[in-house]
Amino acid sequence: MSYTLDKRVAGEFDDVVEQTIDALSEEEFGVLSDIDVQATFEEKLDAEFRQYRILGACNPPLAQQALDEELQVGALLPCNVVVYETDDGEIGVSAVDPEVMLSVVDNPDLDPVAADVRERFERVLDELPDA
Amino acid sequence: MSYTLDKRVAGEFDDVVEQTIDALSEEEFGVLSDIDVQATFEEKLDAEFRQYRILGACNPPLAQQALDEELQVGALLPCNVVVYETDDGEIGVSAVDPEVMLSVVDNPDLDPVAADVRERFERVLDELPDA
Repeated sequence: MSYTLDKRVAGEFDDVVEQTIDALSEEEFGVLSDIDVQATFEEKLDAEFRQYRILGACNPPLAQQALDEELQVGALLPCNVVVYETDDGEIGVSAVDPEVMLSVVDNPDLDPVAADVRERFERVLDELPDA
Repeated sequence: MSYTLDKRVAGEFDDVVEQTIDALSEEEFGVLSDIDVQATFEEKLDAEFRQYRILGACNPPLAQQALDEELQVGALLPCNVVVYETDDGEIGVSAVDPEVMLSVVDNPDLDPVAADVRERFERVLDELPDA
């Protein structure tokens, strides 16, 4: 069982990040956090790392629905989509699988929200050009 | 099984947020993302919501160790600590339990990292004043 939905994507790294943000926007996700792992490791560890971005995607109506069902579920939000350089020099995009994530939460009322987010993430990956 | 480590904390909401950030800093976590859920829902949904902050905590050496073991694990990072108003008017702080989170990742090499983060989060919660 994988905990992410994955795709290899054609293009330059920064372009793929922009396309991912645009595709998320089409599915009504805002990007509430955007962590540049490479820059963070360079600043904090003086270490080189591959290009790697963590985009925190939030669809506000679905987030509100989830939080109304279960207050602590915010500890699992936003749902991350990561863009990174792979070992073989391609660009990978991985979205957390919300159904797997919510398997740790024993609350079936959240299942429809997780299924909805998962379908949206699948469409986001479909929008990106195949490598 | 809960997926969070939880505590009720004494004090005003904003003070608890600051104390949480300070306690995380003592355990060498930087806060790489800070989402104000109340403000987000007000802006995006024109909806009222309780005070609720999602702090994305990252200990760079441990994050690097995790990413070196497994590239996609960034989809589960940073580890969130949430501060919120409870239904009974208290302040709750919940840290995601990294051991439960990583139960969805089939990679025992990550177990020591998860255990280390969990111990640090337990000390963070211990630092905060009991309600």
